[in-house]
Amino acid sequence: MNTAATPSIVPRPAPQPLLDALAARFGAQCSTALAVREQHGRDESPFDAPPPAAVVFCDSTLDVADAVKLCAAHDYPVIAWGAGSSLEGQLLAVRGGVVLDLTRMNRVLDIATGDLLATVQAGVTRKQLNDELRHTGLFFPIDPGADATLGGMTATRASGTNAVRYGTMRENVLALTVVLADGRVLRTGTRARKSSAGYDLTRLFVGSEGTLAIITEVTLRLYPQPEAVAAAICSFPDVASAVDCTIAIMQSGVPIARCELMDANAVRAVNAHDHLGLPESPLLLMEFHGSPSGVREQAQTVQALAQDFRGSDFAWADTPEERSRLWAARHHAYLSALQTKPGCRCVTTDTCVPISKLAQSINATVEEAQAAGLPYFIVGHVGDGNYHIGYLIDPAKPEERELAERLNAQLVRRALALGGTCSGEHGIGLHKQDFLREEAGDDAIDLMRAIKHALDPRGLFNPGKIFV
Amino acid sequence: MNTAATPSIVPRPAPQPLLDALAARFGAQCSTALAVREQHGRDESPFDAPPPAAVVFCDSTLDVADAVKLCAAHDYPVIAWGAGSSLEGQLLAVRGGVVLDLTRMNRVLDIATGDLLATVQAGVTRKQLNDELRHTGLFFPIDPGADATLGGMTATRASGTNAVRYGTMRENVLALTVVLADGRVLRTGTRARKSSAGYDLTRLFVGSEGTLAIITEVTLRLYPQPEAVAAAICSFPDVASAVDCTIAIMQSGVPIARCELMDANAVRAVNAHDHLGLPESPLLLMEFHGSPSGVREQAQTVQALAQDFRGSDFAWADTPEERSRLWAARHHAYLSALQTKPGCRCVTTDTCVPISKLAQSINATVEEAQAAGLPYFIVGHVGDGNYHIGYLIDPAKPEERELAERLNAQLVRRALALGGTCSGEHGIGLHKQDFLREEAGDDAIDLMRAIKHALDPRGLFNPGKIFV
Repeated sequence: MNTAATPSIVPRPAPQPLLDALAARFGAQCSTALAVREQHGRDESPFDAPPPAAVVFCDSTLDVADAVKLCAAHDYPVIAWGAGSSLEGQLLAVRGGVVLDLTRMNRVLDIATGDLLATVQAGVTRKQLNDELRHTGLFFPIDPGADATLGGMTATRASGTNAVRYGTMRENVLALTVVLADGRVLRTGTRARKSSAGYDLTRLFVGSEGTLAIITEVTLRLYPQPEAVAAAICSFPDVASAVDCTIAIMQSGVPIARCELMDANAVRAVNAHDHLGLPESPLLLMEFHGSPSGVREQAQTVQALAQDFRGSDFAWADTPEERSRLWAARHHAYLSALQTKPGCRCVTTDTCVPISKLAQSINATVEEAQAAGLPYFIVGHVGDGNYHIGYLIDPAKPEERELAERLNAQLVRRALALGGTCSGEHGIGLHKQDFLREEAGDDAIDLMRAIKHALDPRGLFNPGKIFV
Repeated sequence: MNTAATPSIVPRPAPQPLLDALAARFGAQCSTALAVREQHGRDESPFDAPPPAAVVFCDSTLDVADAVKLCAAHDYPVIAWGAGSSLEGQLLAVRGGVVLDLTRMNRVLDIATGDLLATVQAGVTRKQLNDELRHTGLFFPIDPGADATLGGMTATRASGTNAVRYGTMRENVLALTVVLADGRVLRTGTRARKSSAGYDLTRLFVGSEGTLAIITEVTLRLYPQPEAVAAAICSFPDVASAVDCTIAIMQSGVPIARCELMDANAVRAVNAHDHLGLPESPLLLMEFHGSPSGVREQAQTVQALAQDFRGSDFAWADTPEERSRLWAARHHAYLSALQTKPGCRCVTTDTCVPISKLAQSINATVEEAQAAGLPYFIVGHVGDGNYHIGYLIDPAKPEERELAERLNAQLVRRALALGGTCSGEHGIGLHKQDFLREEAGDDAIDLMRAIKHALDPRGLFNPGKIFV
């Protein structure tokens, strides 16, 4: 099994007639400048690949369709681009390619307050959507940390801190506009909350990482802003106690809105980065949504459970400002951790296990990381059984990356043996193809390949990703 | 557009060598007796078709795989069978076929209380599962009315009364075991609550109506039985007021667990059938789940809203027995209505619209039904924007069926124009293929056909359904 971090790169220059045709159709919207291509040739993964042949800044679904048609006419790959925040190498042009940058497609097309839904262009980011929703009394809950685009979040089936209560992109995308591999524009789904009308094409595109279609518009479910919100921090003597408490919370049925773990290393890092004074031991960062009395009741139930697991008294973040500061710190954990070891890069894992197996999974992971002696930190959407361990490696020492990848492989194999998945929310990209095969099996990969072939027979959409 | 109710039937007798091979492999598990075949040659739809060539009573996934392999070897269709409660002709052998009766596959394989999930064989019914869960403190919420099998509910993406709070089969199936068209057995998904690992094969099979694979095992999400449950009836002077009240409830964000509409005709029918004394005007039948104080709070909020729409004071069903009686009556609405017109059959609709369009959709439907003079009744999972109107027709009068189908077509077209879907929960089957095409468009149907061809190139799984 290849757990090495080096992607298989088959560089392929673009045919000059394609570049000419793109320039003719798109003018200044199309760039072949090296700086622009290089900027679109890397993501947040630790992988390196040659830059794409060109970048087209699309303003509309029509632009996307035309660019796809031109690339198809010249049999050349196409990669869709949002915020560039992919973590598993999803955006790298490992087979060459033209990148379609969708960030100019940043219009919120429709906010239907009565139906609790919004339609956005793919380049709208989650923060932008919530800013535009602020005065409607509604919000969009999915929060993967990065201010990703909603097109990108759809393509990777993103989730994050609120998923334990509100679900993932799988549950919250109602309808899509996509461009198919021959340039046709297709709408899937409707504005109805549910449907039994035919194959679930929407769900097929959610999580397909740009390999089946290019998502240009997304219709999303919205939620009423909760009447009351309370955030609390609860410290624990060790990671195992925090995890056991999480299991008890989930099994109790309390509709907790966020339930995040940070280990002592992660807490130390965010204390330093965000000038917080959090107690430097493992903690759960929780949020409760509901009516004022409902929130009180949820918090009381969880505080009582926490005491059973030697949790501290809750420290409350009462004001929106305090809550924002705390969640910002949580979201900075990755960056904060990188700063604890100057010049380091981070190998991140993303397993998700059934909640009853969470303690077993995390405890063994902590033991292995400590025994290996690599600096690490753990953050997790533990209410969902999903956590990330980041190993901080010196890029100049290949043996450190190798060690981190070996630890990662052990962790993933254990998660699979426990009934879990190799990716809770980051996707497969380049990095987890072997894990996917191990998880899903050869027959499932064959079937995915058959679907890919049915939709994109010439393999032009983001080739080399998910499976090869 | 063909809105006629007559399915296109291309009878095709089974090759004798196939029947011989099935008899050799399955012995008494395989029947070609006419009575058995006829019993497996009709569902709850108003359509007639010739019976299947044989029925195989499968005991295991291996039985299913072997039967599929034999049929594939003889190029002969296969139709999976659960409770036979399909409403759109999904089970009819319109191209010939061997029916695989899965009702003997009725074992609950695993109840993982800690992970809030259960794995069942496809023939387990929802009531059976809830009986087996009774002492665990957990329950499975999806309730389409009929005591359908969980395999069948998965195959039609069923939902029903609790979906407004707990989602549909789309949200509640975590993993599947399926048999593919060449007889290979495939497992999809894991026991983790979420995953970003590759294409969502699970969601592709959910709602595929037996046309892509035969579902033999299903892993389902379970929920803690709510600490408190309260059911209430609220009567309204007219359907429009009840619907407007529903819209306000949904927009308020109250996490109502059930919100069902019955019009006066439906109430009259269940009063007669179940000896209830409900006021014979339109009503909402609601259920609230939560902590005792949470349920009180939800009910107070909704009662206040109802008063704004001229709703009556709530009549409460406090005990489990009273609640069961009420929900049983709701589920008998279809049967009860049939009994109001001796010898009649029922043409049922199943649209789902965005909640803000629900009043417009239902009001126009009521007007048209009254103008047409056909007896009708309305029941609806209105919290989801999903409702059914049943037209009671005399099977001896083709003009009545024609009229009902014409009303249905008007209703569906209006729902589509309002951003809705032609099927909220019953599926497409034979009956709604033209509506599906109208809703999804030719390109989407082409894409569905391409997927079908990729998975079942010879078209052996339930041919003639969803699209042709």
